[in-house]
Amino acid sequence: MSLITVGTMAFDAIETPFGKVDKIVGGSATYVAYAASNFLQPIHQISIIGNDFPKEEIEALERRGVKLDGVEVVADKKSFFWSGKYHLDMNTRDTLVTDLNVLADFNPIVPDSYQDSEFLMLGNLMPKLQLSVINQMKVRPKLIVMDTMNFWMDIALDDLKEVLKKVDVLLVNDGEARQLSGEFSLVKAARKIMEMGPQFLIIKKGEHGALLFHKHHVFFAPALPLEEVFDPTGAGDTFAGGFIGHLAKTKDISFENMKTAIIVGSALASFCVEKFGPERMKEITKEDIDERIREFVQLVNFDIDLV
Amino acid sequence: MSLITVGTMAFDAIETPFGKVDKIVGGSATYVAYAASNFLQPIHQISIIGNDFPKEEIEALERRGVKLDGVEVVADKKSFFWSGKYHLDMNTRDTLVTDLNVLADFNPIVPDSYQDSEFLMLGNLMPKLQLSVINQMKVRPKLIVMDTMNFWMDIALDDLKEVLKKVDVLLVNDGEARQLSGEFSLVKAARKIMEMGPQFLIIKKGEHGALLFHKHHVFFAPALPLEEVFDPTGAGDTFAGGFIGHLAKTKDISFENMKTAIIVGSALASFCVEKFGPERMKEITKEDIDERIREFVQLVNFDIDLV
Repeated sequence: MSLITVGTMAFDAIETPFGKVDKIVGGSATYVAYAASNFLQPIHQISIIGNDFPKEEIEALERRGVKLDGVEVVADKKSFFWSGKYHLDMNTRDTLVTDLNVLADFNPIVPDSYQDSEFLMLGNLMPKLQLSVINQMKVRPKLIVMDTMNFWMDIALDDLKEVLKKVDVLLVNDGEARQLSGEFSLVKAARKIMEMGPQFLIIKKGEHGALLFHKHHVFFAPALPLEEVFDPTGAGDTFAGGFIGHLAKTKDISFENMKTAIIVGSALASFCVEKFGPERMKEITKEDIDERIREFVQLVNFDIDLV
Repeated sequence: MSLITVGTMAFDAIETPFGKVDKIVGGSATYVAYAASNFLQPIHQISIIGNDFPKEEIEALERRGVKLDGVEVVADKKSFFWSGKYHLDMNTRDTLVTDLNVLADFNPIVPDSYQDSEFLMLGNLMPKLQLSVINQMKVRPKLIVMDTMNFWMDIALDDLKEVLKKVDVLLVNDGEARQLSGEFSLVKAARKIMEMGPQFLIIKKGEHGALLFHKHHVFFAPALPLEEVFDPTGAGDTFAGGFIGHLAKTKDISFENMKTAIIVGSALASFCVEKFGPERMKEITKEDIDERIREFVQLVNFDIDLV
């Protein structure tokens, strides 16, 4: 029982209607690790950082069982930096700055010590790098989950389609599902995307919840209606980390258990947005998570008698 | 056990990405009646029509147990006419033509034969007219449900607030909830709106489902992911008709039963959008409705063990 997570470790500068931070740790692999480590340890991280990544952040991850053997440290460069600004509806954001820094040279290597991992989370990255990680695995993991974004559909669609053939679960948002499939209806889009490779498709709709498709089945999980969404940064990665964390913990990759995993992921994501960056993820306990999951059960639970 | 529904009976001209119709019956009271009459009869309709409303449409309603004593027929005028065009996302539409015709003189009168009704559905209408109907009731109905729209918030907000003080359930969409409350967060918006009068608030989010608020409780019902949304006209009224129809049939106005009623309303609305106007609503059977409700149960059903 173990999990590899591949993705970025970064600094973010974030501005929302509720405030701003100039420099806070972020990156897809960071958020996935914080979320998944609530469910299983160790987490086998693969990423790249520069000489500026804080020692205390490294130690905080290590204390949560995050192994960093697969994280390359580049002594003479800075870590990846992203800066963005959210508008009132929090569903759209403007990217202000993207400094690739170390990420420009990222060549992920799967350490031997990670080779027994049964679960592989490919965070949003250049598709060629995602493919490289899959190809380095001596035994194909039991489950490969892939995140991606519209940017790669624009500039590396052929590579993206190659990776799609090799993964089990794809995570995209509704706009990306439409772009990738050329279909407006999400039901039709899902069918086309599943023909490209993944047997399972999760379409994330932000504050409107998430849909899980598998063959002719569909499951819908709402997002928890929140008083405030303070900072949505990392919510998608946190969702992914909770999702694969639950699956890896239970070792059950059935459609039924994926439904549960989506509720777990949604619960984790609902914490992530309550504070800037991964701050809230560092605080929450098992009890907090269970209580939040109970709120999800209440949110959608109803009885109906069909006579 | 009986229901009054107040609203428009109209002609619509509709253009969607899938086709167009030049003249089809519509109007909020028409859709509410078609939906609610699946659950209880008679339906006590209050509306106004001109000399052009087709005899066969009147008869079709009568065959479904819709009483028309409260429907004024104006011999020398035409029925209300609305024309609109939907865009690809179906969540937005442009109104092309609004010919009030008979609606300009509408003065709803509650016939004596309707006075024993325990459920009152106030379709989207000028707030003064909604208030007039409430004031005509000799015994306050057990449940008053009110629909409205942003137009009345723009031009008749004070009147609208008067009606709000006298109703139990308000139905609005997310944009309208934000406009009425001045709050962006729907949780905060709901709290403010419930302080204005209604104990229950339903926020409709179209393809993203609906939220039910009551005190500190919240329930979320998804919309069924559909291959095609052919024509959304009347979906909101159909939802309202299914909602109040289920409540009036069961005579149970608890929060628990309202959750069920929202699923029923969502199921009905999912049929309405499959064809132009109320065409699909004329075809469906009890078995069709039950089968669709089962799909909703499947859509949101999950098991989780908190250890």
